Amino acid sequence: MLRNRLIDTFGRIKPILCGAQSLRSLANVGSSTTKLTTIEVDDKSGIATLSMNLAPVNTLTMELMHDLIESINQIESNKSRGLILTSSNDKVFSAGLDLKELLEPDRERLKEFWTLFQDLWLALHLCGLPTAAAVNGHAPAAGCVLATACEYRVMLPDLFIGIHATRFSFVISKWMMLSYQSVLPRRIVERSLNQGKLFRTEEALEVGLVDEVADSKTEALAKCAAFIGTFDRANPVARTLTKRMCREPDVRGLLNDRSGDLQECVDYVLTPLFQQGLCAHLEGLKKGK
Amino acid sequence: MLRNRLIDTFGRIKPILCGAQSLRSLANVGSSTTKLTTIEVDDKSGIATLSMNLAPVNTLTMELMHDLIESINQIESNKSRGLILTSSNDKVFSAGLDLKELLEPDRERLKEFWTLFQDLWLALHLCGLPTAAAVNGHAPAAGCVLATACEYRVMLPDLFIGIHATRFSFVISKWMMLSYQSVLPRRIVERSLNQGKLFRTEEALEVGLVDEVADSKTEALAKCAAFIGTFDRANPVARTLTKRMCREPDVRGLLNDRSGDLQECVDYVLTPLFQQGLCAHLEGLKKGK
Amino acid sequence: MLRNRLIDTFGRIKPILCGAQSLRSLANVGSSTTKLTTIEVDDKSGIATLSMNLAPVNTLTMELMHDLIESINQIESNKSRGLILTSSNDKVFSAGLDLKELLEPDRERLKEFWTLFQDLWLALHLCGLPTAAAVNGHAPAAGCVLATACEYRVMLPDLFIGIHATRFSFVISKWMMLSYQSVLPRRIVERSLNQGKLFRTEEALEVGLVDEVADSKTEALAKCAAFIGTFDRANPVARTLTKRMCREPDVRGLLNDRSGDLQECVDYVLTPLFQQGLCAHLEGLKKGK
Repeated sequence: MLRNRLIDTFGRIKPILCGAQSLRSLANVGSSTTKLTTIEVDDKSGIATLSMNLAPVNTLTMELMHDLIESINQIESNKSRGLILTSSNDKVFSAGLDLKELLEPDRERLKEFWTLFQDLWLALHLCGLPTAAAVNGHAPAAGCVLATACEYRVMLPDLFIGIHATRFSFVISKWMMLSYQSVLPRRIVERSLNQGKLFRTEEALEVGLVDEVADSKTEALAKCAAFIGTFDRANPVARTLTKRMCREPDVRGLLNDRSGDLQECVDYVLTPLFQQGLCAHLEGLKKGK
Repeated sequence: MLRNRLIDTFGRIKPILCGAQSLRSLANVGSSTTKLTTIEVDDKSGIATLSMNLAPVNTLTMELMHDLIESINQIESNKSRGLILTSSNDKVFSAGLDLKELLEPDRERLKEFWTLFQDLWLALHLCGLPTAAAVNGHAPAAGCVLATACEYRVMLPDLFIGIHATRFSFVISKWMMLSYQSVLPRRIVERSLNQGKLFRTEEALEVGLVDEVADSKTEALAKCAAFIGTFDRANPVARTLTKRMCREPDVRGLLNDRSGDLQECVDYVLTPLFQQGLCAHLEGLKKGK
Repeated sequence: MLRNRLIDTFGRIKPILCGAQSLRSLANVGSSTTKLTTIEVDDKSGIATLSMNLAPVNTLTMELMHDLIESINQIESNKSRGLILTSSNDKVFSAGLDLKELLEPDRERLKEFWTLFQDLWLALHLCGLPTAAAVNGHAPAAGCVLATACEYRVMLPDLFIGIHATRFSFVISKWMMLSYQSVLPRRIVERSLNQGKLFRTEEALEVGLVDEVADSKTEALAKCAAFIGTFDRANPVARTLTKRMCREPDVRGLLNDRSGDLQECVDYVLTPLFQQGLCAHLEGLKKGK
């Protein structure tokens, strides 16, 4: 149980989670003067909307992941009332990880890349504030992982969401599976991960991968804000500690062995099997398959 | 796996679970001559109905918890066919823990209080008999925890049930969360614990927090008895061992580290944060907020 | 996380899982010249159909379990596109374990028998290929366990499926419970295991114990084949590793302590309590109760 440990380190939890190695990698990426994300705080509601702005499809490059982590930390330390994650792009929420980083990678750079993705997931998954995703565009692969790391998902119609990693021969980490499992029934998790299934909005609603459907981005943001409003009667610190207790079983494995997860991922990405699968996938994408 | 360990200690499981410390605390509370609970055994069905009788709202004081544990043990050792937990009060099943014990508490007395609540949860959660709750009044906080520790819940209309701890700044223990999670989907557990949500009967039925709705207490008791009848073709000892195997993952953490859970709870309750939150909550209750 | 460990041992996973003791027990049972199972591979689809053929009710004798393990391994090493498990008997899929092996057993033979059942469950549960069960007859007890070890279940109407072990005083192992839990909600798992519930086809569909209902065996096989077709866009190796990652939490306990599970089972089966319960059950079956 994290109750007292979290009390002790309240406000200092992020540095502990990220660790020295990861902070180093952040430093390598550059300063936060890039503007791949924007934060807008609603004066009336006190809710911060965090938008991903990396044209054309919010690919999770090292720079975008770095900016997202900084923005999440900033919103959290400003004691906003809640955080809504969305996209400036009306077609794509996020296209997922930058697959070019996985193609014939330099081992050291790949390590920094994966560590940054671990950091981003931890920052969002353990964010003390109420979080919601306004999924106003497609959310495949890591785009879906970001959405499931939030506490609520509102999605626009006729879009796709899901972890389709097996289609490009990738094997996700256990913590990504647990994140999926925190919102979907076990039977659906295994089947859809194995299939590499992308759910249409309506299917996603039916299985519980998203919580509501909205007809416009404005409506999606309003529904996310209404969800954040449901916590008004809860003590904010007790809420944060309760959220972390609920999520502790899902993050424990990663926090206990970040380097093990990193090693496994790097070793797998460097296998000829994965490289061939990824190449074939990228060829297919080029041909519009 | 508990199969053989439970066979060896069959009938002797309770003393082992409770531990010396807890037995001491029981001794301090006083003898069982108080009558805060009543047991009625139906001659035809062999089912024991255990009623909580502490006016006005069955607050879980040390005395009521002590009497409940004794009654559960007595019903179990009398080899009744099943146990139905209910209230003599038609408005409130149980209002939950005695919050006065958490307000500026004496550390040693708080330890006894929490140990007794651990004991009560273990006694009910691991009770070898089929158990059901006839929820004939509101069941907030620990009132809901008692209901979810049973195997089945029948509730009357227009009542509230749920763990609303965050509303009075309390952070529940992991075993209480696991008890909730044993009946509700993961996604609902996190959200409703964070919100401090109280479910109306109809909502509770929809998410699975209760299994049936009944129009009267008599009907609720009859439905509980019918549930207990569904075990008629099962061997009673095999049933008990199977129930404990199913519940073992939820109790393992607590049984392995009762003193750690106690320490965490006591430390948290003594923080100014919690004390202020509790004060504000009690003020609100007085004003009928 | 098994990702790299499984990559290293890919193709060699089965010998590692089975272990020396189990291989010995296989040797004792006899050669694979018996024909208690048949394999038919569809030339067009590449899908292998594995049928159980042991008249009258596909009781899982040592010989049938041995043949099933060999057939699963053979189908897997032939790189079929998928595996469909079914029965040659139109009334019974499998009646479950050979209860005669549990009645006043020789301890050493009982050890071989249970080890073989562990092996069979592991072989099917971790089979790298897509698996589906065409449940064309009743599937009680271990018959149901085999079906739940597959990834998909299609069942014919008016049949029974479920783990009714408590009805003959047996207490299942934790890994069998976890297999049940991988397809059913927690609340349903505990209740139905305790009751020894057998679900009619329609009930099984409603709770998710089966995925589809078919009107004939031909239609069931076609639906299973269609399910296997849903993996066509997934990289086969990534799919296998993802499936094993999803199932790793359920098998970890058994793989870490196979001898402990064996010891517990043997000790329990040899108790007078179980022997009396089993006798009474077998008497009841004779009388057609």
